[in-house]
Amino acid sequence: MSLDATLKVSIDLDDRSYDIHIASGLLELASAWQGLPRASTALIVTNDTVGPLYAQQLQRSLSAHYPKVLTLSLPDGEAYKTWETLQSIFDVLLQNACDRKTVLFALGGGVVGDITGFAAACYMRGVPFVQVPTTLLAQVDSSVGGKTAINHPIGKNMIGAFYQPERVVCDLHTLQSLPPRELSAGLAEVIKYGPIADMAFFDWIDNNLDALLAREPKALAYAVKRSCEIKAHVVGQDERESGLRAILNFGHTFGHAIEAGLGFGEWLHGEAVGCGMVMAAQLSQRLGLVDTAFTERLTQLIQRAGLPTVGPDLGVEAYLHHMRVDKKAEAGDIRFVLIDPPGSAMVRGAPDVLVAEVIQACCR
Amino acid sequence: MSLDATLKVSIDLDDRSYDIHIASGLLELASAWQGLPRASTALIVTNDTVGPLYAQQLQRSLSAHYPKVLTLSLPDGEAYKTWETLQSIFDVLLQNACDRKTVLFALGGGVVGDITGFAAACYMRGVPFVQVPTTLLAQVDSSVGGKTAINHPIGKNMIGAFYQPERVVCDLHTLQSLPPRELSAGLAEVIKYGPIADMAFFDWIDNNLDALLAREPKALAYAVKRSCEIKAHVVGQDERESGLRAILNFGHTFGHAIEAGLGFGEWLHGEAVGCGMVMAAQLSQRLGLVDTAFTERLTQLIQRAGLPTVGPDLGVEAYLHHMRVDKKAEAGDIRFVLIDPPGSAMVRGAPDVLVAEVIQACCR
Repeated sequence: MSLDATLKVSIDLDDRSYDIHIASGLLELASAWQGLPRASTALIVTNDTVGPLYAQQLQRSLSAHYPKVLTLSLPDGEAYKTWETLQSIFDVLLQNACDRKTVLFALGGGVVGDITGFAAACYMRGVPFVQVPTTLLAQVDSSVGGKTAINHPIGKNMIGAFYQPERVVCDLHTLQSLPPRELSAGLAEVIKYGPIADMAFFDWIDNNLDALLAREPKALAYAVKRSCEIKAHVVGQDERESGLRAILNFGHTFGHAIEAGLGFGEWLHGEAVGCGMVMAAQLSQRLGLVDTAFTERLTQLIQRAGLPTVGPDLGVEAYLHHMRVDKKAEAGDIRFVLIDPPGSAMVRGAPDVLVAEVIQACCR
Repeated sequence: MSLDATLKVSIDLDDRSYDIHIASGLLELASAWQGLPRASTALIVTNDTVGPLYAQQLQRSLSAHYPKVLTLSLPDGEAYKTWETLQSIFDVLLQNACDRKTVLFALGGGVVGDITGFAAACYMRGVPFVQVPTTLLAQVDSSVGGKTAINHPIGKNMIGAFYQPERVVCDLHTLQSLPPRELSAGLAEVIKYGPIADMAFFDWIDNNLDALLAREPKALAYAVKRSCEIKAHVVGQDERESGLRAILNFGHTFGHAIEAGLGFGEWLHGEAVGCGMVMAAQLSQRLGLVDTAFTERLTQLIQRAGLPTVGPDLGVEAYLHHMRVDKKAEAGDIRFVLIDPPGSAMVRGAPDVLVAEVIQACCR
């Protein structure tokens, strides 16, 4: 297999443009790692779950291009998306006298990608980095678009940067080792792209959900490619989220409240987004933007994907509070991504009373 | 006085362009603060030395434009340019539920500017900020060009971002309260612009040094303006320091070794740069790029400005070591900014034996 034979999605951002390569076996494919910035050192950042499975393969492939390839394994989990972990990346870089040409490789899921990307954005004011996402969620969402961050004790992803990778390499083979719960969480972000941008893709997911859950490579390849294409299209028009890009947060406003209310890590991000999409669809419906049939169809698909469709009973006030301190809020006004009509989304506020109705109807 | 009557230098960086305003009394001039991004909250970040002198004036001026104006005073000094201090800025922003439109104002010298700029670059992946430099060094150098950073225990300015301010407001009146040693340190960066870019400006400094040391407003205004113009010209061609911009580091390679070798804070940055320029000129001379007359003239001017021209005796090996781990080094090769001919600079390596000669000749 040559790299040309793999699926490719191009992200068009002027001098920050890059390609996403999607295929099985890319970790071991020599050509997948050609043409990256040259350097004396590459640093693979991974975690204790993914590292033992795939770091050696990547190390071997990169050794053909970089005289020195270091690997740093972080503890696994959202709880470690902190300054202390970030600092441990800087420590390794400085202890090895890594210069500003050093290339970082993020091998793992969203947490590894976010923290490694932010480390690359800040180390010596910016070194190149490559995303090598190994979860479905990271392949279809977090590795694309240049959002990098760490968490602050008061809020998730509060400290970060928009910083684009040199390349994204999605080896679909890595999805075979994913726990079922994480596969479902990734499907939430795949499903998301239908209502906000492409109802034909929504139909395709509906028809191919069993193949996706069975991890059939052809189905996964198409789902990842189409998701990346839609995200690329949106991000290409609004890199720094001043407007349109916010539609990618469909389900994330309610989802954020669920994650914050339960304590981050209790539900997976994708699970909260799945349930959040049900709530956002309900809100769209109550505002007269979509009909009952759409809401029901979306809810059923989310349920079939193995995701929760009923939110935790945090109380209306807790939901409103967490949504008001969300990054997307402006001066305390909650901004919702609403569907109008299916296949298209917009960002707007909504009356508290309607939001409260949705919370009461969807959570128990 | 209207803002139009002040000196202005424009930094041309496409959608990141901004203006530098230079005059006495700008802190209290209403029009100096008009036309900035609107927000519900502004945060003034200052330090315990500058805050008591000027924060109230700025707070009053900003209150006309922002419903809420917060002030955070950091401890004064390079020792506090750390993650912990940065975190204290994030804490204030989050505790006050500041959204992503919040505007940060950096009121102080280089440390306040660097850390506030980096906080603005990272908070919610980027909020607007304004530089209000109150030291000569910050007015002519660190507030212009978008370099922001904090220190890492292993290295200075190792963690940071290129992030441009919305505006730079240089109130020359604040220079009247500057300790003499800091005035001299600022003059080092002013003098720097002569050899690397403009020998006519070098002549002007030579002829007006007494007026500058006496803090005559007209002389200070011209020195700040011309320095910013030269820096703007260089940065406009190379925002992210991939080439030309490195000439702004004239004197900084040797200077960095002095600071690192003595422990940061022992000498002021400008003092180390002053002495570093003497050493870089000596190296240029030994490479046949400039003549003795130039080196002597530069050395005398630096001395007259109240700056050291003899380096500390750290030993050749220590100098070489610190220069090799400098950010500007590539794979351990030291990059020097050399003068060739006066008024023009280039970046290149030099034989260790020549560098050692310079260290032995210039340090005791």
